[in-house]
Amino acid sequence: MSQNGAIPRHERVLTVDTMNPNVKKVEYAVRGPIVQRAVQIEKELKEGVKKPFEEVIKANIGDAHAMGQRPITFFRQVMALCAYPKLLDDNKFPEDVKNRARRILQACGGNSIGAYTTSQGIDCVRQDIANFIKRRDGGVPSDSDNIYLTTGASDGIATVLKLLTAGEGRTRTGVMISIPQYPLYSAAIAELGAVQVNYYLNEEKCWSLDISELERSLKAAREYCNPRVLCIINPGNPTGQVQSKQCIEDVIRFVAKENLFLMADEVYQDNVYAEGCEFHSFKKLLFEMGPEYSNKVELVSFHSTSKCYMGECGFRGGYMEVINMDPDVKAQLIKLVSVRLCPPAPGQALMDLVVNPPQQGEPSYNTFIKERTDVLRDLAEKAKLTEEILNTVPGISCNPVQGAMYSFPRIDLPERAIKEAEARSQAPDMFYCMTLLEETGICLVPGSGFGQKDGTYHFRMTILPPTDKLKILLNKLKEFHEKFTKQYS
Amino acid sequence: MSQNGAIPRHERVLTVDTMNPNVKKVEYAVRGPIVQRAVQIEKELKEGVKKPFEEVIKANIGDAHAMGQRPITFFRQVMALCAYPKLLDDNKFPEDVKNRARRILQACGGNSIGAYTTSQGIDCVRQDIANFIKRRDGGVPSDSDNIYLTTGASDGIATVLKLLTAGEGRTRTGVMISIPQYPLYSAAIAELGAVQVNYYLNEEKCWSLDISELERSLKAAREYCNPRVLCIINPGNPTGQVQSKQCIEDVIRFVAKENLFLMADEVYQDNVYAEGCEFHSFKKLLFEMGPEYSNKVELVSFHSTSKCYMGECGFRGGYMEVINMDPDVKAQLIKLVSVRLCPPAPGQALMDLVVNPPQQGEPSYNTFIKERTDVLRDLAEKAKLTEEILNTVPGISCNPVQGAMYSFPRIDLPERAIKEAEARSQAPDMFYCMTLLEETGICLVPGSGFGQKDGTYHFRMTILPPTDKLKILLNKLKEFHEKFTKQYS
Repeated sequence: MSQNGAIPRHERVLTVDTMNPNVKKVEYAVRGPIVQRAVQIEKELKEGVKKPFEEVIKANIGDAHAMGQRPITFFRQVMALCAYPKLLDDNKFPEDVKNRARRILQACGGNSIGAYTTSQGIDCVRQDIANFIKRRDGGVPSDSDNIYLTTGASDGIATVLKLLTAGEGRTRTGVMISIPQYPLYSAAIAELGAVQVNYYLNEEKCWSLDISELERSLKAAREYCNPRVLCIINPGNPTGQVQSKQCIEDVIRFVAKENLFLMADEVYQDNVYAEGCEFHSFKKLLFEMGPEYSNKVELVSFHSTSKCYMGECGFRGGYMEVINMDPDVKAQLIKLVSVRLCPPAPGQALMDLVVNPPQQGEPSYNTFIKERTDVLRDLAEKAKLTEEILNTVPGISCNPVQGAMYSFPRIDLPERAIKEAEARSQAPDMFYCMTLLEETGICLVPGSGFGQKDGTYHFRMTILPPTDKLKILLNKLKEFHEKFTKQYS
Repeated sequence: MSQNGAIPRHERVLTVDTMNPNVKKVEYAVRGPIVQRAVQIEKELKEGVKKPFEEVIKANIGDAHAMGQRPITFFRQVMALCAYPKLLDDNKFPEDVKNRARRILQACGGNSIGAYTTSQGIDCVRQDIANFIKRRDGGVPSDSDNIYLTTGASDGIATVLKLLTAGEGRTRTGVMISIPQYPLYSAAIAELGAVQVNYYLNEEKCWSLDISELERSLKAAREYCNPRVLCIINPGNPTGQVQSKQCIEDVIRFVAKENLFLMADEVYQDNVYAEGCEFHSFKKLLFEMGPEYSNKVELVSFHSTSKCYMGECGFRGGYMEVINMDPDVKAQLIKLVSVRLCPPAPGQALMDLVVNPPQQGEPSYNTFIKERTDVLRDLAEKAKLTEEILNTVPGISCNPVQGAMYSFPRIDLPERAIKEAEARSQAPDMFYCMTLLEETGICLVPGSGFGQKDGTYHFRMTILPPTDKLKILLNKLKEFHEKFTKQYS
C-alpha cells in the first residue's frame, strides 16, 4: 500500500501487463490520439485559451449529422410515433407516417419498441429488407431467413469474422483486407487473434483492385496462415473508389477458384458521385454469373443506417445478408447473436424505413425525394470540389472521389519533416496531421491509421462539412501544406 | 458439385467443423431450443393447428413490455422529442419534457441523436449518472470519467471479461460465477476461451452466498487456472434473492484478501420486494468499509434500462462504473470501445432519463411517481403470488422471490421421467419444460440452462405476466406437475 492509500500498480489484478494481449494490439485511428487532442483543443478554446483559429473542424469521421446534415423528416416522424404512440392520434402527422409506425409497433412484443425483438431482428423488418434487396438487384431473390439485423455494420462484420476465426499457428485463419483499409477490420482481426493479410489497392489506377495483387497476397499468406476470407469495401473507405462490374466479377471468380469466404462491406451503396460509376452489389453479380457461382460462393453483404443519404449513425442500425452459409453454421450464428439478446429496436425500425421509404402517391413522398436528392447532390458537389482544390496544391495528389464520403490524397513530405517525426517517434503523416491540427484546428486522420505502401504518406478527409466550411478547410489546408513544405525543405 | 447444384458440405469454407471452436461451446438457454419451439407453436396456432391451449404464455425472459407493461410516459415523450425536435414547438408536451429533450440534443453532434456520440458515452449523460450514483449511495462520490455507456448491460459485462482474459493453460483467466447463473456469463466465458469457475448458491438458505463456498471454489480453481475475477448478480438472476449487507461486506473482504477483480451486476437494483430486504450497492459498502478497501478493490458495477420499473429492453441502454481501474487499462478500454464507435444514442438518452427522472415540482412528477409505484407494487404482488401458489404444489418448492423478476423453484422429478429424458438425450428438466410447453403452451427455461447442483432440477419463470394471466399460468402449471408426476410414477 503506497503512502496515499492508492493501490501500487503491481498489486492490481488488471494491469496492462496482465490484460488480454489481443486487446492491446487493437488500433483504431479514426478515434485515435489525433481526435483525442482535437477534443482537448475544443475544451481549451471554450476555456478561452488563445489559438490561431476559432474552431476545430472535424473531418476525421463519417458523421453526417454532426457536420450539420439534417435528418430525413419522414424517418424521424415515424421514430417519434414509435417512441410515443399517443402521437398516432395527432392529426399533424401524415397517414403514411402513421401507417409505417403502426406496422412496426404491431411487430413488436406488447406493441412496444421497448420490448426485446427476436435476436435475428424483427420479422417484418427482415421481410422488408429482403424485398428491398430483390428490387435493388433487379429481381434476384432474397430470403428473409438470410437477413440478420445488426448494431451498425461494425457489429455484423466483427460477428462474421468471429465465426471464421479458428486454428493455431500456420492453420490460423487469415483475413485478406485491402490496404488502405477501414481500421475496424484490423481491430477486429487483432482482437480475435486472427492473421491480417494485406492486399494493396492500386493508387495509380484510382485505387482499383488488381486480381494479380490478390493472387500475390494470397500466395504469400499461405506460407504462414490459412487465408479463408476476403474482405472488400465498395464504395471504398478510406479511398472513395467505386469498383467496376468487371472487377467485382473477377473478384467473385477469384474467391470461387481459391475457395475463400467473401465479405462485402456495401454501406456506401447510395454514395456514388462520379460520371460513369455505378454501384453493383456483389449479390446481384454473383447471381448473374450463374449457378456455378451463385450456388457455391459464400458471401455476406453488410449495410447500415449510418451512411448513404440518411447518415443516422447514432441509432446503430444495420443488417447483413448471408448467402450459401451452411445451415448448421447459421444455427450457430443465431445462437451467438442471441447472447446479446437483440440489436437496438429503434435502429431496426430505422433500417426498415431506409429499405421501405415513402412510395409515389404517399403524402410524404415528395418531401422525402427532395431531401434525399439534396443531400446526395451536395455530397457529389463536395466530392468534386475536394478533389479539384486538393489537386491544385503542389505536393498533394488526390484521386477522384468516386463514391463514399472520403478523399485519401497522397502527400509529399520533405525529408526533414520525416526526420523530425522520427525524432518524436511519430509516423510522418501523424506528425503532419498533428501539426495541422495545432496550427489550423483541422482534424484529419493520418494515412498510417489505414495502412499505405511503405514510403508513401496520405491523410483521410471526409467530404461532409457544409460547402462553405469545406472551402475554408481546403484553402487552409492548401496554405498549411505550402508552409509546412517550405518550413521543412 | 452435387446434382442440384448446391455446395457439398465439404467444399464450404465455413462449416461447423472449421468454425471458431469457442463459439460452438457457447450456450444460451434463455433463447434456446425451448423458446424456438415456442415460436414455432405460435406459428402453428396462427395457421389453425389444433392444440390443447389457445396461446403460448412466454415466461422465459425478463421482457416486461412484451408482457403488457406500459412504458413510462415521461421517458417516451422525451424520446419522441429527441427523435423529432419539431415537437419542441408543440404545446402538448410539458415543459420538463421539453427541457430534458433540449438538454440531450444540445449534447449531441449537430444537435441530432443521429450523430455518433463519444465512444465512452455523451458527456452530460455520464455526469447525470455520476450524480445519480452519488445520491443513491448516500453521498459516496462518483466521477463521470469512470462511467462508460454500454449497449445494454450484456455488452459491458462481455467487454470487461474480454479485458480480463489472458494466459494459457494453467495461467488462463478463471472467472468465478454463481450457480445457478445468468447464461450471459457462461456464454461470454466460452466465447473468450476463459475458464468458468463455479460457486454454488445455498438453496436451503434462500439462495444466499456463503464465503466458505467461495473459498472452496477458489482453492479448487487455483489447481487448474488463474482465477482473477468474481461475478455477483444482486438482486439475483435467475434465483431472485437479495444479498444482505453483511454478505456483500464479506464478499468485499474476500476479494480484497484473495486479490480478485469484482464484477457486480446490479441491473435489478429497484426490484426488491420482500419485507426486510434492501438493495445495497457494492460501491457504497466498499466506500463505507474505509480506504483499506475503497482504495484497493477493483470493482465494476453494471446497470441497464432494461429492468427495474422501466423495462426498456429494446433500447439497449446501460452503463458501467469502474472503480480503482488502472488508468492505463482505462485507456485500453476506451480504445476498445471506440472500435464500435458508440452505444446507441437513443439508449443513452433513455439511460439519462432513468438516472435523472422528473423532480418534485416539475409538471411530469406526479404521473411519473404513480406509474413507477404501480409497476413496482404489481411486481411485488406477483412475486408473492408466484411463491405462494408454487409452494402449494407437492413436489415443487420455491424460495421467496425477494427481488429481480424470476422464481427458480426446485421440482421433484420421478425416476421414470428422468429415464425417459435420458432416452431422448434431454436433460430431465428440459424434458419437463418441453412437455409443459407442448401440453399447456407455457414457456419456461429449464434449470439446466442456468446450472444447478447435480441431481436437482429447477425451472426459471418470470413473474412478469399480468396478474390474471399469471394466476392462470400458475394453476395450469400446478395441474401439469401433478399430472406429469402421476404419469411417470
